[in-house]
Amino acid sequence: MQNIKVGLLGFGTIGTGVVRAFQKNPGLLASRLGARLELVRIADLDTTTDRGVQVAPGLLTDDAHTLLNDPEIQIIIELIGGYEPARTFVLQAIRNGKHIVTANKALLAKHGEEIFRAAEEAGVNVMFEAAVGGGIPVISAIKENLGANDFSAVYGILNGTCNYVLTRMDEEGEDFADVLVEAQRHGYAEADPTFDVEGIDTAHKLALLISLCFGTKVDFDQIYTEGISRVTALDIEYARDFGYKLKLLAIGKRDGEQIEARVHPTMIPANYSLSSISGVFNSIRLVGDFSGPVMLSGYGAGMLATASAVMGDVLAVARDLRTNTSIRVPAMGCPQSQLKSCTIKPMDQLVTSYYLRFNVKDQPGVLAQIAGILGKYDISIESMIQPHRHEAEAVPIVFMTHVAEERSVAAAVAEINRLDVIQEEALLIRIEENLE
Amino acid sequence: MQNIKVGLLGFGTIGTGVVRAFQKNPGLLASRLGARLELVRIADLDTTTDRGVQVAPGLLTDDAHTLLNDPEIQIIIELIGGYEPARTFVLQAIRNGKHIVTANKALLAKHGEEIFRAAEEAGVNVMFEAAVGGGIPVISAIKENLGANDFSAVYGILNGTCNYVLTRMDEEGEDFADVLVEAQRHGYAEADPTFDVEGIDTAHKLALLISLCFGTKVDFDQIYTEGISRVTALDIEYARDFGYKLKLLAIGKRDGEQIEARVHPTMIPANYSLSSISGVFNSIRLVGDFSGPVMLSGYGAGMLATASAVMGDVLAVARDLRTNTSIRVPAMGCPQSQLKSCTIKPMDQLVTSYYLRFNVKDQPGVLAQIAGILGKYDISIESMIQPHRHEAEAVPIVFMTHVAEERSVAAAVAEINRLDVIQEEALLIRIEENLE
Repeated sequence: MQNIKVGLLGFGTIGTGVVRAFQKNPGLLASRLGARLELVRIADLDTTTDRGVQVAPGLLTDDAHTLLNDPEIQIIIELIGGYEPARTFVLQAIRNGKHIVTANKALLAKHGEEIFRAAEEAGVNVMFEAAVGGGIPVISAIKENLGANDFSAVYGILNGTCNYVLTRMDEEGEDFADVLVEAQRHGYAEADPTFDVEGIDTAHKLALLISLCFGTKVDFDQIYTEGISRVTALDIEYARDFGYKLKLLAIGKRDGEQIEARVHPTMIPANYSLSSISGVFNSIRLVGDFSGPVMLSGYGAGMLATASAVMGDVLAVARDLRTNTSIRVPAMGCPQSQLKSCTIKPMDQLVTSYYLRFNVKDQPGVLAQIAGILGKYDISIESMIQPHRHEAEAVPIVFMTHVAEERSVAAAVAEINRLDVIQEEALLIRIEENLE
Repeated sequence: MQNIKVGLLGFGTIGTGVVRAFQKNPGLLASRLGARLELVRIADLDTTTDRGVQVAPGLLTDDAHTLLNDPEIQIIIELIGGYEPARTFVLQAIRNGKHIVTANKALLAKHGEEIFRAAEEAGVNVMFEAAVGGGIPVISAIKENLGANDFSAVYGILNGTCNYVLTRMDEEGEDFADVLVEAQRHGYAEADPTFDVEGIDTAHKLALLISLCFGTKVDFDQIYTEGISRVTALDIEYARDFGYKLKLLAIGKRDGEQIEARVHPTMIPANYSLSSISGVFNSIRLVGDFSGPVMLSGYGAGMLATASAVMGDVLAVARDLRTNTSIRVPAMGCPQSQLKSCTIKPMDQLVTSYYLRFNVKDQPGVLAQIAGILGKYDISIESMIQPHRHEAEAVPIVFMTHVAEERSVAAAVAEINRLDVIQEEALLIRIEENLE
């Protein structure tokens, strides 16, 4: 039986999960693959910490180049994360003819084109199932079995940290900052949570999904990105009163020749299946012209679930190696040369309904002032609540609008924000009723 | 660009969907595949009916052998359904070196081993994504990206007809027979609905899922199979009152060295994500040791969704052909010789809680008689309702039990059925609280 040798760059949390996967089911893997997978080298700057897994003496090195230059290693798993040195190492491994399996969405969202082109030239695979949706096999579904579909939409919950925080805020009524601290304590949020809570991680993933589904290049910077840090437990409570759940959604949608590409807190009807995705779970809905809506859900992060996706990619590459195939499926579903450029629909042309919360001085005439400005911009109001009245304090007024153009809503909100009675910049949350 | 020639056996509903898929996105398919897919021949006994799609003159024949013996055709799509002549045609195509894509779960559940062994000998693929869960890419997920997992459970809603009927009964309070007639009128149920409503179709699919997930041979006849024809709208209403939904579930679970393999109406907590799968949607939950629970949902049947799965398999085979690979992934995930035999756990050893409905003569002392027998068999009752009292008519008494062994419950029910006051055989519905 053939031996396929694998090297691992990065022995952090996910790296540890991957080592466990190599160790736990070797017989099962060999039986399914028809070859033996062998983890022959691990590189990490930290060679001393006890990760709770046993590795053979000499397996762990602090020098990545011993892996990158080892002619016996055919597959490199990159789990360093971030831009550098990951980019340099990956490009060198590709030049050395090694196949790449990575979980690094930031790297691919920023340097994907360079890496994918280098891989095409070298005739090696770059696999990245673990970069989106943790253990959920969404990348392979798009590229493989759903590959005969022309997709019209891809959207979902792509960040476990945000979904955990929003779920706790919903269930416990706690505020953002408190839940975040608790999430950090449980290891569900990073020490610096900016990438997660500000939606950047979600946007990295959406960029990959849009390219895969629509066959387009998408510049990550073009994706409208807004995080959850301004959402309060009160907003979630109001959402519930109106029959909605609040989720951080990534939305990619075809709209004629344009593509909607946006990440923001979103209110969706409580009876949507996405509304039931709670805690660290992720869920992605793909809409194909033949398949119709297909929804894939599971753990969006975590040591073992992410290791499952990494190992699935390793298996796929190993199957190609066993059968002497090279690049059976291009990294982005079609050759880089065939990816089209696309026009992202400007946010001010978005048409949807809105949740608007204003914190105002509690004095007579405020509602009339705000309603007057909304009316002037042709924004019609479906309902309004002013839940807590405390004489002389700042109080929230919440409006749910009918469908309106974002340009008008933004202009109205800007004008309202300049009123003397406004105590704090308004919060605008988009409502999506036509996704499922 | 290479041309890959495909033949289609069976020009019914799904066949028509497949023809549409070939016609609608040829450029997209070629770009993703790096080769051109060409549908060169269709065989069906009916060569005259207008299916609403244009096919070139001469493409359609009533003689399957012109496809099976055409040396240019490399892939045969079998959509005839049923055992014969599908089995004979598929075996002949395999002997002639053609790869097979099929949606025929009955054929594979009954003759799978013969077909898979023949394909291994001939070095061709047998792909069957469309046989389970319509457009949901579950077979490929198990074999490919989740392939590094040791699975402990696979379960879900696998029959769109049953789920449609149960959903309508739930939402409208209509009775089984009425909804079935309506489903037939809408084309959601066959003229002879036995395979669907009696759970046989679900059991065929479960047999395939169990083999794939657990690496075992499973004899389809060993799967305990019970359909939904005895369920009434009242049972669904009671389920709701107790906080449950009633679904026809397929359940495959590892239990030590044994495997639970069963299909039956099941009450599951209303807040389970499977409870929100309504109408013709299907959903499958896979539990892997690394991935954790992964849930895949989508249309479980229908012309276009099933065509999506068929075309995904055609793409996979075509990718192998383009790269000169043969049998990159074995049909059942590992070679036939490595499938283990397994022991199915006898139903009377099942331990769960139960919903029991007795229709009794409305007279004093009945409850005491029934409760006495349940107590004798050590079955403890969690709650009881006797909702409608109509002097002298048959009335239902419903019990929800605590966890008990099925052997005891079956014996108690048999004894109760023999009581004079019993008007109709008891209905027993299993409750699953530990699935998610």
